[in-house]
Amino acid sequence: MDKHRLAHEAASLLARLRETRPLVQMITNFVSMDVAANVLLAIGAAPAMVHAPEETPEFVQKAAALVINTGTLSRTWADSMEVATASARMHATPWILDPVGAGATSFRDDTVQKLLRRRPTVIRGNASEIISVARAAGLTRDAARPSGVESTSTVDEADHLARTLARHCFCTVAATGPIDLVTDGQRAVRLANGSPLMTRVTALGCALSGVIGAFVALGEDPFVATASAIGLYGVAGTMAAEEAAGPASFRTAFIDILARIEAEDLVARLTLV
Amino acid sequence: MDKHRLAHEAASLLARLRETRPLVQMITNFVSMDVAANVLLAIGAAPAMVHAPEETPEFVQKAAALVINTGTLSRTWADSMEVATASARMHATPWILDPVGAGATSFRDDTVQKLLRRRPTVIRGNASEIISVARAAGLTRDAARPSGVESTSTVDEADHLARTLARHCFCTVAATGPIDLVTDGQRAVRLANGSPLMTRVTALGCALSGVIGAFVALGEDPFVATASAIGLYGVAGTMAAEEAAGPASFRTAFIDILARIEAEDLVARLTLV
Amino acid sequence: MDKHRLAHEAASLLARLRETRPLVQMITNFVSMDVAANVLLAIGAAPAMVHAPEETPEFVQKAAALVINTGTLSRTWADSMEVATASARMHATPWILDPVGAGATSFRDDTVQKLLRRRPTVIRGNASEIISVARAAGLTRDAARPSGVESTSTVDEADHLARTLARHCFCTVAATGPIDLVTDGQRAVRLANGSPLMTRVTALGCALSGVIGAFVALGEDPFVATASAIGLYGVAGTMAAEEAAGPASFRTAFIDILARIEAEDLVARLTLV
Repeated sequence: MDKHRLAHEAASLLARLRETRPLVQMITNFVSMDVAANVLLAIGAAPAMVHAPEETPEFVQKAAALVINTGTLSRTWADSMEVATASARMHATPWILDPVGAGATSFRDDTVQKLLRRRPTVIRGNASEIISVARAAGLTRDAARPSGVESTSTVDEADHLARTLARHCFCTVAATGPIDLVTDGQRAVRLANGSPLMTRVTALGCALSGVIGAFVALGEDPFVATASAIGLYGVAGTMAAEEAAGPASFRTAFIDILARIEAEDLVARLTLV
Repeated sequence: MDKHRLAHEAASLLARLRETRPLVQMITNFVSMDVAANVLLAIGAAPAMVHAPEETPEFVQKAAALVINTGTLSRTWADSMEVATASARMHATPWILDPVGAGATSFRDDTVQKLLRRRPTVIRGNASEIISVARAAGLTRDAARPSGVESTSTVDEADHLARTLARHCFCTVAATGPIDLVTDGQRAVRLANGSPLMTRVTALGCALSGVIGAFVALGEDPFVATASAIGLYGVAGTMAAEEAAGPASFRTAFIDILARIEAEDLVARLTLV
Repeated sequence: MDKHRLAHEAASLLARLRETRPLVQMITNFVSMDVAANVLLAIGAAPAMVHAPEETPEFVQKAAALVINTGTLSRTWADSMEVATASARMHATPWILDPVGAGATSFRDDTVQKLLRRRPTVIRGNASEIISVARAAGLTRDAARPSGVESTSTVDEADHLARTLARHCFCTVAATGPIDLVTDGQRAVRLANGSPLMTRVTALGCALSGVIGAFVALGEDPFVATASAIGLYGVAGTMAAEEAAGPASFRTAFIDILARIEAEDLVARLTLV
């Protein structure tokens, strides 16, 4: 897929998203709730943070996409994630797995392992997390374990396992970082947009998983939808960095830009490598 | 109540609020905690987010008002809300019900139904939520159910049920949106302030319920206090929109303005319809 | 310790922090998660909010420091705090106690009492909280109880008990406010930086405890590390107030400045009293 086609796909999906306002349910970590909800509102989606086992199965039926994020995990939330993803499978609702901190503790690895059985539509994480998910799926044994929740691996180190994981799970896998890789096991695209400031604002990766959910909710090819969401996010990041005086003013500019970014910004700035 | 009287009431209550710094306890959803606390600090109140059943009854005794918000609900929190509102009733502490997502799941409807028995001083929600609360109170059967947590009804559709609900519960009911309705069943006022950007920032409705709590905490007529809080909030929203380049810079400007808004701003800008 | 030595110590620790990016685990209240994570990222640390009993003991082993904050407390979290601090003790990981709302309910007092047995490296709170911790430690009986989560006492009122508490617990105690006191029972320093706007942004005290964790993680004298962190924070606050139009733009400017503050800012502006 070349840059022009992706820019046009992304612009077209964004236009539909703003028109249809898909309801995206997130079971996401506490740190990310404010910024993820605001990012989703800015791009034009309707976010709903709903995680109680008492109401999750009923709510999933209303959602156009479900996003599961394993940050600030607890036993109850892991249970809710199982119920929610089972409900998503049953109603053919697309769902995104954001395996925050995969590899950091065995509790997270166990949770990720169980969630993989529910067949996510998309898995998005940093390079270390994608490698750890591949390990949890039994696809490798010898990859390095991350030290915390930040990536200690590069996209090149994750590339082979990302493709293998995508084929293994019949899903789209995105390893995001300075360079983003999106693959469904057959196709692959690498994007190089954004700004180093994005790593200095908490939970922008979690919010990106929400944006992917909103794009995938539109019902088109998940590989294209995921690459479009990541492309849009990166271009907005590049634009925001030009206005920012530091990480907090970057966050403000970034969300403002997501609300007004246009097709021509994507066409002019989207960079593949 | 005409515009000048309300502007003067609001200005007078705001002055007292800044002087007395009422302690407002909130049991509120995770998405709203940061912005609600910052909004309350900006207007001059002292917010406290306290939700554990182990300490809630003791803490409520210190609070000048209690705000209960049903977003990101769970079993434990629903229990805490029961304990907290019982304690509020016992100590004659005014309390505000913000029925986020009422109508979206039966778990929320059940929770709202139980909470209504504790006689809230004020119920504030969007039009869909107010209609759903009226349904939970048995006041209607055939109203439309909302699809998510955003309103799918107008204030006109909610008007009759809002008044009926207010009379039924002996409380003040506020249905907020592009036009806000405040009624205690006898009196009613409609306000038309604010900005469409307010719907693009998460949890500004939840934070408004906190502000209503701070105004009602002053011990005056809850109908006037609620209309004053909503008027202040809307005027600050109008002013912030003039400075904003998008939803995130709107949020920043809005909170800044809440901290410095003056009586003359209210007198000059407050609009009733 | 004079102003020049402290400014140089703080600058040197900050440089090392930015280079080594210590992993700081926080079990902190919901209100503070966003701002604390963003403050830690801005100064150059790697924050991780991990609180589940299932993974806390394993995660603590990776962390360079642990921060325990008793805001939005619940039974489960209190249990996690016990497990986490036991693990920190076992692995000689420094840990910070931020006793939010100590004295406000007996549940918080009980929790604080148990946590004191795990020997925190540093205790940081406002003056009221430090007095309440001293009461929980059995060091006083007749001090005033705070009404909410904000301080109702001055640093002078807390001074004697802070020193006694530091000797009793073999730790560093910091009572922060308009004037900050740092003491290890033998040494003491008072700082007078920052801005009144810092009390109008929620959870900046909680975030400061995170910054102290990041400084203490470097393995130097905790008294010096704590005073350095508080000095840095205060100077950034003074600088941010010069750019701010209210509490929300203050928060933005403050985080931006934490990401770019330099040794010369500390040398030029740090004020001891």
